[in-house]
Amino acid sequence: MMRLDASAWLNGAAPATDGKVVAVHAFQMLCPACVAHGIPQAARLQQAFPDLVVIGLHSVFEHHDVMTPRALEAFIHEYRLPFPVALDRALPGSPVPATMQRYQLRGTPSLLLFDRTGRLRLNHFGRIDDLVLGGVVGRLLAEQPSAAHEAPGAAPPAGGAGCDAEGCALPR
Amino acid sequence: MMRLDASAWLNGAAPATDGKVVAVHAFQMLCPACVAHGIPQAARLQQAFPDLVVIGLHSVFEHHDVMTPRALEAFIHEYRLPFPVALDRALPGSPVPATMQRYQLRGTPSLLLFDRTGRLRLNHFGRIDDLVLGGVVGRLLAEQPSAAHEAPGAAPPAGGAGCDAEGCALPR
Amino acid sequence: MMRLDASAWLNGAAPATDGKVVAVHAFQMLCPACVAHGIPQAARLQQAFPDLVVIGLHSVFEHHDVMTPRALEAFIHEYRLPFPVALDRALPGSPVPATMQRYQLRGTPSLLLFDRTGRLRLNHFGRIDDLVLGGVVGRLLAEQPSAAHEAPGAAPPAGGAGCDAEGCALPR
Amino acid sequence: MMRLDASAWLNGAAPATDGKVVAVHAFQMLCPACVAHGIPQAARLQQAFPDLVVIGLHSVFEHHDVMTPRALEAFIHEYRLPFPVALDRALPGSPVPATMQRYQLRGTPSLLLFDRTGRLRLNHFGRIDDLVLGGVVGRLLAEQPSAAHEAPGAAPPAGGAGCDAEGCALPR
Repeated sequence: MMRLDASAWLNGAAPATDGKVVAVHAFQMLCPACVAHGIPQAARLQQAFPDLVVIGLHSVFEHHDVMTPRALEAFIHEYRLPFPVALDRALPGSPVPATMQRYQLRGTPSLLLFDRTGRLRLNHFGRIDDLVLGGVVGRLLAEQPSAAHEAPGAAPPAGGAGCDAEGCALPR
Repeated sequence: MMRLDASAWLNGAAPATDGKVVAVHAFQMLCPACVAHGIPQAARLQQAFPDLVVIGLHSVFEHHDVMTPRALEAFIHEYRLPFPVALDRALPGSPVPATMQRYQLRGTPSLLLFDRTGRLRLNHFGRIDDLVLGGVVGRLLAEQPSAAHEAPGAAPPAGGAGCDAEGCALPR
Repeated sequence: MMRLDASAWLNGAAPATDGKVVAVHAFQMLCPACVAHGIPQAARLQQAFPDLVVIGLHSVFEHHDVMTPRALEAFIHEYRLPFPVALDRALPGSPVPATMQRYQLRGTPSLLLFDRTGRLRLNHFGRIDDLVLGGVVGRLLAEQPSAAHEAPGAAPPAGGAGCDAEGCALPR
Repeated sequence: MMRLDASAWLNGAAPATDGKVVAVHAFQMLCPACVAHGIPQAARLQQAFPDLVVIGLHSVFEHHDVMTPRALEAFIHEYRLPFPVALDRALPGSPVPATMQRYQLRGTPSLLLFDRTGRLRLNHFGRIDDLVLGGVVGRLLAEQPSAAHEAPGAAPPAGGAGCDAEGCALPR
């Protein structure tokens, strides 16, 4: 079962996901690779696959004081994001929010793909090629609800903490 | 049944295609959109989907005197094409070669996708988005051989004959 | 005389500009075209022309509550901006800051080029082609200090207020 | 004095170059880096700098049997080259044509820039950045005819003979 722990939704209500293939794009508004690659790719995903549910997840693990819900609202407006965005719930005593912890995301951007049964099938940190991603989505869309499989583990990023062209990584 | 009418193969022998999903990229070596988009995409397809069989098809319908097999050999060498290339067989009395006629290609680049049973499932003229293409290939790879469907018709190009950023079209 | 009205400098002190050709890139951290085009181009300018002084100018005219100096610091850090950034001074009773008003900028991104005598020679709103920009900078760098000319006026943007792929425009 | 040794001109007559800054783009029609980068850049040069004279130079040093004048005509037509093209004159007993030898080009693409006095000022093999190139052209256009300088030598390519993403190099 997919479970996003959202403290609020911006840019639209939580979409219905029952029986749907779902793509969750975890980002931070000040993550350069998210802005340059991840968010545009998520928007293209929605356009290329009308049957796919695309959701943004704002998973802030640094600069909490400036990546506020109000700042995110301005960001969503200026970038004209075409999908609803869940605010990943902050947890007391940890810089890393709840959904990010549940799915053990390595940083942002991360892409999660859930099949029609709600099972996690892809958990990818950093950039992913359009052809490869389209292939995975195409396979999941072709599956019947009974055909769920094991989830592949997250591919760990090459580098350490901090932001580079691939993304912003959590310290390990 | 996929049927390529090849007068010769360059850059490798005709690959085994039984039970395989096959992508045939029809191009001309002097077609700008083929060189800029179609051929690199076909090469990326091969890299992204190791189970997919990728084949080039040199379907010359203009400038026959300079797009010769010998010129194509030099082109394949300089561009380092990573897939075998079939020479579409010339037909007496027609500028349009045999395979191009059989599949009613509108021009180059054209991409043909065949499922595991050899049935034509995509016949696309001009550019096609990586995500969309990856999605179709992913679906076909997920299918079992018994699951063949009807082929969608070719989407006719917007313009008339001649070459533009989308491709080189046959006169209609 | 070039006059930037800065309330503070981030990412380095105000550089010496006497006798230098100076490029001032006016941006907002939440302006998509600035992030995608203007800022990377300003960074490339600095790399391509070591004799040119490149300065960022944060000219906020909307979303003032979230594009704060503290937020800009995080932005500069994550995007690794390679040039010093002046905060355009806020003016009481106006959303448009002081330097933006002085040079009658139409929005962000805007690029100002000053010659060796401090005279404004280019005032461009929106995207500008690398070759064209390189040409103007090359001419200015070739000039001796005595060779100053009249400043060309700002090219008005095509559209109205709001952000698009070209930039964020002020309401007129 | 600029001296192109042309056996013929295609796509227009030899342009007048007296007192003009001239860019000569040496290419081969089967050189991938020429097609992907050099030729489009030469076309953009012409558009960005109406006072600059842009000339193509077809300097064939390999695959002579297929890069014939007739093949080049088809290439020029399909790629819609916007500048006249000189055929670099073949020399008996050498694969390397006359102009290529005179200017000691290392391969294709090569870009030659001549100032208003006809003096060679840039001789660049491989890719060159738009900003950097624009800067050089801007400086040359700003010069008066009396201000000619020494020509910088050609930057030798990093690799050996053969074609790669940077260009096609002569064997040394």
